[in-house]
Amino acid sequence: SQRHTIAVIPGDGIGKEVMPEALRVLDTVARRHGIELAYREIEWASCDYYARHGKMMPDDWKDQLLQTDAILFGAVGWPDSVPDHISLWGSLLKFRREFDQYVNLRPARLFEGVPSPLANRQAGDIDFWIVRENTEGEYSSIGGVMFEGTDREFVLQESVFTRRGSERVLRFAFDLAQRRARRTLTVATKSNGIAISMPWWDKLAAEIGSEYPDVTWDKQHIDILSARFVLSPDRFDVVVATNLFGDILSDLGPACTGTIGLAPSANLDPERRFPSLFEPVHGSAPDIAGKGIANPIAMIWSAAMMLEFLGRGTGPEQAAHDEIIAAIEATLREGPGTGPRTRDLGGTSSTAEVGAAIAARL
Amino acid sequence: SQRHTIAVIPGDGIGKEVMPEALRVLDTVARRHGIELAYREIEWASCDYYARHGKMMPDDWKDQLLQTDAILFGAVGWPDSVPDHISLWGSLLKFRREFDQYVNLRPARLFEGVPSPLANRQAGDIDFWIVRENTEGEYSSIGGVMFEGTDREFVLQESVFTRRGSERVLRFAFDLAQRRARRTLTVATKSNGIAISMPWWDKLAAEIGSEYPDVTWDKQHIDILSARFVLSPDRFDVVVATNLFGDILSDLGPACTGTIGLAPSANLDPERRFPSLFEPVHGSAPDIAGKGIANPIAMIWSAAMMLEFLGRGTGPEQAAHDEIIAAIEATLREGPGTGPRTRDLGGTSSTAEVGAAIAARL
Ligand SMILES: CC(C)[C@H](C(=O)O)[C@@H](O)C(=O)O
Ligand SMILES: CC(C)[C@H](C(=O)O)[C@@H](O)C(=O)O
Repeated sequence: SQRHTIAVIPGDGIGKEVMPEALRVLDTVARRHGIELAYREIEWASCDYYARHGKMMPDDWKDQLLQTDAILFGAVGWPDSVPDHISLWGSLLKFRREFDQYVNLRPARLFEGVPSPLANRQAGDIDFWIVRENTEGEYSSIGGVMFEGTDREFVLQESVFTRRGSERVLRFAFDLAQRRARRTLTVATKSNGIAISMPWWDKLAAEIGSEYPDVTWDKQHIDILSARFVLSPDRFDVVVATNLFGDILSDLGPACTGTIGLAPSANLDPERRFPSLFEPVHGSAPDIAGKGIANPIAMIWSAAMMLEFLGRGTGPEQAAHDEIIAAIEATLREGPGTGPRTRDLGGTSSTAEVGAAIAARL
Repeated sequence: SQRHTIAVIPGDGIGKEVMPEALRVLDTVARRHGIELAYREIEWASCDYYARHGKMMPDDWKDQLLQTDAILFGAVGWPDSVPDHISLWGSLLKFRREFDQYVNLRPARLFEGVPSPLANRQAGDIDFWIVRENTEGEYSSIGGVMFEGTDREFVLQESVFTRRGSERVLRFAFDLAQRRARRTLTVATKSNGIAISMPWWDKLAAEIGSEYPDVTWDKQHIDILSARFVLSPDRFDVVVATNLFGDILSDLGPACTGTIGLAPSANLDPERRFPSLFEPVHGSAPDIAGKGIANPIAMIWSAAMMLEFLGRGTGPEQAAHDEIIAAIEATLREGPGTGPRTRDLGGTSSTAEVGAAIAARL
């Protein structure tokens, strides 16, 4: 079907600034390809809403979102007014968990025209996917403080990994690697230090790996793996990681490609029982919010990933996706000093100018 | 006192190859400065020992080590014969914990003559310390598996942070920052995702921070912090982190300075109730072990840190430390193509050639 209902949640900070650019681009491709997009504009899941209502979302948030096919999400968090763990656990992390968006898929890709902070790396040298477990693991609110306020005080924090949760994300990653030219998978671990969960995770990876004889895979401890993102990013094809390690790697990888202002992400329920969520990796960025200088490309690319997922890799949605990527590539290829680009890419253009330039190419 | 008893533990893999170079350098400076070093050469805490005895260490390991003033440690781990979590929890992690070496101090420093994998970074641009909590936190063996072998299977992994353990390492880091020119501290956290322990850690950091009005500090989430190590490493002065985050950052930081083959570490009991331990960050590196191509500089620098700690920052030990650092600097300054350097630095020299070159400068 070419009709999709999209929940549009700008959220906080630069989320509100980059979202209009994604909608501008979506409108353009939708018109060209006869894709009908019905937007539900949502002002909750934001710290502004919290300020007025004392909670991040209305009680019927789930019902409202279940009536949509996908969620386009800007960013949430405004630590000056709401502590991060309250705003995030009250919105984004709830979506991921309650809609069982168990895969967080994030590319690290170096574009032509974008200088890498790494020496001597050209477009093509960095081009891999991070598959992050997105619902469990180290992100847990189980635990507590004992002997509070005394010198015996301590805090327990539980990580929880289920076989089901780990197997399915590992399998998703092996499947993805299998479809790629290099068929190579790296499993992030830390089984030498984290003594219970990580050896268990390694064993599971080996189990699933044995089902994929045509995929070359190995496990690497998160410390040296992070180092290798910097030292030899060309070695990676697909990287799969637990929630926390995936979080770290999916900021680090994009940083190696110039700026996290380019990095999109797809929070997927691959079984499509619930709406999936598409958002830039960068977050609300209070330090640059309100200035109109945020890079809208991560948000626009996230919107493209949404179309690709909605179209199941074919049809007008896929064509629209491909055109958006091509327009981003072409805009970046103009290079510093000539093309429109935001400050994180060494330019002086505004968020809206970059959005308009990409839309104009479509 | 100028007499020190040193436990020398080469361990596994390249640990056995780099240790002789550290001893060669120590012998040279000790002779020049009249420092008497008595070595206790120890073959346990290695997977070879495990193969023969079914355990990593003899039962009286603690008594033996308590008779020494410091431990010079190569690396442990040989995953082909002993699973990492068994070898590490049976040796290194035991030392850190039972000798309450609660600070793991690790520099990230870009030397003249060493090309950074980061574009346009010169010596002086990267020069900071990572202060890692070293006894608790995410490195825990508390937890277990439930419903094993069924599809309800899950694993719990506990992280444990004590007020005492967190306060003292935070205070160490603030003290260190206070003594440096820039007086700047970054506190690594992940309080937006890890809902119990990390907000607690943030609160503690704020408590301790209020005791240091002359130190400029902030907290940064580990994901964006990792990205900033690559994007703006010049911004950092002292970084303090929990055990796991410190582990990651102290591989990533050195990677940004060219190679982890340069990075030393000091596992300190600052109160000197127990022997402290000095080791390179790189580990046993099975992939290059046995070839004589490992970079001995991290091990040599670790030995220098040991002298500095033993001399409490003064005396012949401090002079010897300074000379070793100067000799490392001079050797690296010769630059690629001319000076002796190992493969990780783009050279073809052997481990022994580099060790000999540094010793020859002393
Ligand atoms: C070998 C491993 C357990 C160890 C750690 O994680 O602490 C190492 O990576 C280090 O950084 O000293
Ligand atoms: C905002 C935060 C909770 C979130 C996360 O850690 O998952 C963000 O960093 C991300 O990567 O999507």
